[in-house]
Formats: sequence, structure tokens, C-alpha cells
Amino acid sequence: MSPEEAYVSLDRDAMDAARARLAQLAKPPGSLGRLEDLAVQLAGVTGTCPPPIPTNPAIAVFAGDHGVVASGVTPWPQDITAAMVGVFARGGAAINVFARQLGATVYVVDVGVAGDVSALDHVMHRKVRAGTDDLARGPAMTVADAQAAIDVGAQVARELLARGHDLLVTGDMGIGNTTAAATLIAAFTQRDAAAVTGRGTGIDDATLNRKVEIVAAAVAAAASNVESLALLARLGGLEIAALAGYVIEGCRARVPVVLDGVIAGAAAVVADAVEPGVRDLLIAGHRSVEPGATIALAHLGLDPLIDLELRLGEGTGAALAIPLVQTAARILTEMATLDEL
Amino acid sequence: MSPEEAYVSLDRDAMDAARARLAQLAKPPGSLGRLEDLAVQLAGVTGTCPPPIPTNPAIAVFAGDHGVVASGVTPWPQDITAAMVGVFARGGAAINVFARQLGATVYVVDVGVAGDVSALDHVMHRKVRAGTDDLARGPAMTVADAQAAIDVGAQVARELLARGHDLLVTGDMGIGNTTAAATLIAAFTQRDAAAVTGRGTGIDDATLNRKVEIVAAAVAAAASNVESLALLARLGGLEIAALAGYVIEGCRARVPVVLDGVIAGAAAVVADAVEPGVRDLLIAGHRSVEPGATIALAHLGLDPLIDLELRLGEGTGAALAIPLVQTAARILTEMATLDEL
Repeated sequence: MSPEEAYVSLDRDAMDAARARLAQLAKPPGSLGRLEDLAVQLAGVTGTCPPPIPTNPAIAVFAGDHGVVASGVTPWPQDITAAMVGVFARGGAAINVFARQLGATVYVVDVGVAGDVSALDHVMHRKVRAGTDDLARGPAMTVADAQAAIDVGAQVARELLARGHDLLVTGDMGIGNTTAAATLIAAFTQRDAAAVTGRGTGIDDATLNRKVEIVAAAVAAAASNVESLALLARLGGLEIAALAGYVIEGCRARVPVVLDGVIAGAAAVVADAVEPGVRDLLIAGHRSVEPGATIALAHLGLDPLIDLELRLGEGTGAALAIPLVQTAARILTEMATLDEL
Repeated sequence: MSPEEAYVSLDRDAMDAARARLAQLAKPPGSLGRLEDLAVQLAGVTGTCPPPIPTNPAIAVFAGDHGVVASGVTPWPQDITAAMVGVFARGGAAINVFARQLGATVYVVDVGVAGDVSALDHVMHRKVRAGTDDLARGPAMTVADAQAAIDVGAQVARELLARGHDLLVTGDMGIGNTTAAATLIAAFTQRDAAAVTGRGTGIDDATLNRKVEIVAAAVAAAASNVESLALLARLGGLEIAALAGYVIEGCRARVPVVLDGVIAGAAAVVADAVEPGVRDLLIAGHRSVEPGATIALAHLGLDPLIDLELRLGEGTGAALAIPLVQTAARILTEMATLDEL
């Protein structure tokens, strides 16, 4: 991902062809609403019209731990992250259930779990380090660690595409990661800590107040630092960095990339800062309850497809958007035209 | 559908069991948002916990014509209804495309098309009459016609369930039917014509003004008449009556019924008036752009799952909700529990 590589952008010719095709179809103009916009975007992302109908979606769940849990931002113990990696590997988590229903494959990636999960099968073992340091007390990680985590995400995207997957969905697991996501969103969008910080798994008012203070202090401590990768290292998580790399690589490969909630939103904000233009290719799968998610999407100019008040993460909200993406692509391929009426 | 039959209602024990099950699952409480509410409702509808995962959804597209097109409420010629029945039968309409993507089967029912489509294969031929009369000049149909159309819808629901379908989706086709739907919604919810009337396929301001006047006059002419079936006959369409019967029969059979847009909303308002309690069992698939759809759903206390600015009808918006219903049911069956962590 050297800077001299070309920035990604939508293919305008393919989008024009998609708009022309939509105008010919046997329906009132615009009557399929935002699915029509999505169909046009898919043509622009893939560079072809009609765009291929994705049949083999992959959901990569990047797992990492966060030193900030030591500062009391969540009631959940840190070892839940490792335990959930085990549940993902056994196929029992919500995202596994969603994926089975929706015809997707789940890949679990240990990019920074504090606990030792190396004995688990069905896990991609890519640990950069065993969790971040506490962002309330100093940098979460080094710039080298952040870059290594980005590279893990990009490499995972390449591997999934090499396996024949044609749609990439973001997933995440990490106790404490809504705090890291909130700091990144605040720092990259220049919004107040109180505006971007939410209750995550469901914290009480006292914990929320502490979380807002920690986010505000961390952003202030990082404020003099304007370089994207350094900001990511100062504030972010390993799984968020990996997601940024995954997102960028998916866009470069011109496959549809569907974002989950606030963690993916933070990663996408980072990705678009590292590689301007990425925002145009991304698909916002859903609107998380976490306020930072909405702020991140607004910053990126993205409008989510699903809005069902989910706040679990794992990729669950984005997974629900898979059939919408598939259906949007299929419209351009299979519908009769007005001439046939 | 005699009045002495028991009204349908949700199974409270199954819903309590679903809530208890959700509380045990490996996730923060409530973190799957409205999918959890939907899972509880599915238990209540089917009377079992966990509810069966629907694997064989059916979409019934009821087609009928409307005499009110003679009063100039739409620029589309009436024979588009018959032409579209042909497109449905050939599998080229938007709803066919959606159904193939989403694993559903489309059934097209001629309950009141003005043109002769009797030679078409792959159509359920159940014509009650060749379109309604102009509701701007008098009753759309007789009470006997309305009852016959309701019975067609109920019979179609029974046939689809006998074929093994386990989820019923509403679909519709009928040039002019947003005018009939608006009159029914105005009459049953006591709202102004201007509030419930929309642009349908995309009419201009002059046509919209005429449409609002027609809706207001028809509702006023019918206002002294308080019996639901008579109101339906005065204002409604054959496909709307059939949808009301289909919805009621699906609820009685305790299978999930997913509503499409404004036409289904009008049918559901009628269905709930004919058989109080139906509203609790219904699932609002999507929010149509048509303002009457939102008013009908609010009247019924329903909150739609999808909101993507669709306004095509045919069942397209509801079809997009099928994977959400399936995923909600699957959560209760397959997810690991907190004990397993």
C-alpha cells in the first residue's frame, strides 16, 4: 500500500450504463428506490454493467483486545474476547447463525487477542501483539504495530478473494473496542467525545461518563498529531487497523465491501484518510445504535441499508445487507424491459 | 370466515419462552435490536418456541383493475395490468427477480384483471369480475363481489400452505390501485385525503390534485356507511379484498405474513377491521414512499423492517424482509448460550 499506487475510484462509464439500463426496465422510473442507487454503485465498484451478482460472500471477524479496559470502560472481562473467538470457531455466535442463513462464510482472525487462542482450529492466526496498551495512559500501540495490523487485514482480504469470495463483509470482536472506535471517530471527524461515545454492550451512566472523559482526554492528547497512521496507532485497536487494511484492499480489488457498525465505521474513516476515495466504493450495511457509527457514516457520506437498532457487532448488521446487495445486482441482469411489455 | 370463529391472537406463553431464551444467548441483552422483537413475535405467531425457520416462502401477487382510472388518476393505461400479469408469468418482473435471489416462489393470481389473461400459463385464474367500477362515480363493486374476492385470497393462502409454504408475502398489481388504497386507508383511519394520497407510479401535481379530490369525495360519499365489508366494496379493489382474505387466512393458520407497501397496508387495515387482532400477528416488510402506507402501518401499530424508498409494489419491499424473518427465527434455534462461554 505505497502512496504511489493509484487511488481507487468509481467507474463512471459503468455507472452511466447502469443508469441507462435501469431506465429501460419494466417499472416506473426510480420505483426501486435506494436499490437502484445501490445497483449503480455496484456497477461503479466492479467496473462492469451489469455488475456480477455476488454469490460467495465472506465475513471476516477481526478480533483484538484493548488495554483501555483497565481504565474501567466496560463491565465485561477482557477474556470474553478469547472466549468469543472460540464460539466463532465452533459456529455458535450470532454471526455464524446469520451467515448460515444468508449464505456467507465466516472467517475469524486473531490479529490482537490478549489471551492465547493458538490451539483453536478454524481461526486465522495472525496475532500482531496480545492486545493494545491503555489509550487512556499513552499510545495504544506503535506505528509499526498499526501498520502490521493493516497489512494483516489487507492480506486476509487477498486470501478470501483468492478463495473465490466476491463480496467482503466486515466483522469485529474486542471487549473495549467501542472506546477505541469512539476516539478514532472523534479525532478523524473533529467531533466532541460526548457526541461519538455510546453505551457499547450496555454500560451504566457512571461508566458512560468515564468513557466520555477517557475519549476526550485521549483525543486531546493526540491532537497535535495529524498523520493518519500515527493517530491510528495512538488511539486505535489492532482489529480496527486490520479492518482498515481489509476495506482498502477490497476496494482496490473492486469487490463490494459492506461495513458493519461503529467499529467498521472507525476503520472506514481511517481507511478513507489513508486512501482518499475509498468512501465512494463502500456500502454501509446498517446503522448501529452507537452514536459514533452515524457520525462516521455521515463523515463518509454513506447512508446505511438496514436500521434495526442492532449493536452487537461481529458483522451482524452488515450481514443482513448481503441479500440487498445481491438483489440490487440481479435487477440489472434479469429484469424485463419496457419494450417487452 | 364466520364471526363465531375465534379471533387470532399471539401465543403469550411462546413469547415468554422466546424472551427467556434470548436472555440466555451469548450476547449483550437486547443487542440484536428489533430482530429480537421479531423473534419473539414469530414465537407468538407460530405458537412455538423456538419458532420454525421459514424455508419455503411464497409471494402471492394479486392482480386487479380499477374503474377509477377513467377519472384520470394515472398516466399508465389500464392494459398495463394484464401485460404485467404476462411478465410475472414469464418470470421477468422485479418481484420474480427478487424471489429468485431470496429463495421464494411467486404466484400470480388474476382476481380482477380487466383484460383477458385466461390463456396464460403460470397464473392462478380466479377472476371475480373484470375490474371494479369507478369509485369516483359510485360503488367500486358489490358487497358480494368484495366477499368473493376475500374468499379468493383466503383460498389462495390455504392452497399455498397446502403446498408446503411456511411464510406468506403479499404482492399486488393493478393500475390505479394506489387511489383505491388511499380511499380505504382514509376511511378506516379517519385521516384526510391529502395525508394518505401519494404519487403512486409518479404522477404530476395536476394529477395528484385530482387524485386527492377523488379520494376525498369517495370517502365523503361512503362516510355514512360504517360496516367494514360495505366500505371495502364501496371504495376498494378486487386485489385489495383478496389480500385482506389472504392476510386473515395466513394469520389463522399461524404462519408469518409479511406485508408489502400501501396496497398491503390498505388490505391489512381492512383485515384488522374484519377480524380484530390480526394486526398483532402481521409483519410490516417495508415502508413504502406512499404516505398512506405509513399511516396504515401507524394505525396498525406496525414498524416496518426495510426502509429503502421503494414504491413499486408487486411485493418487492416485503420480499426484501424475508431474510430478516428467517434470521430472526434462526437466532432462537442455533445460537450458543452465555453458559457455553
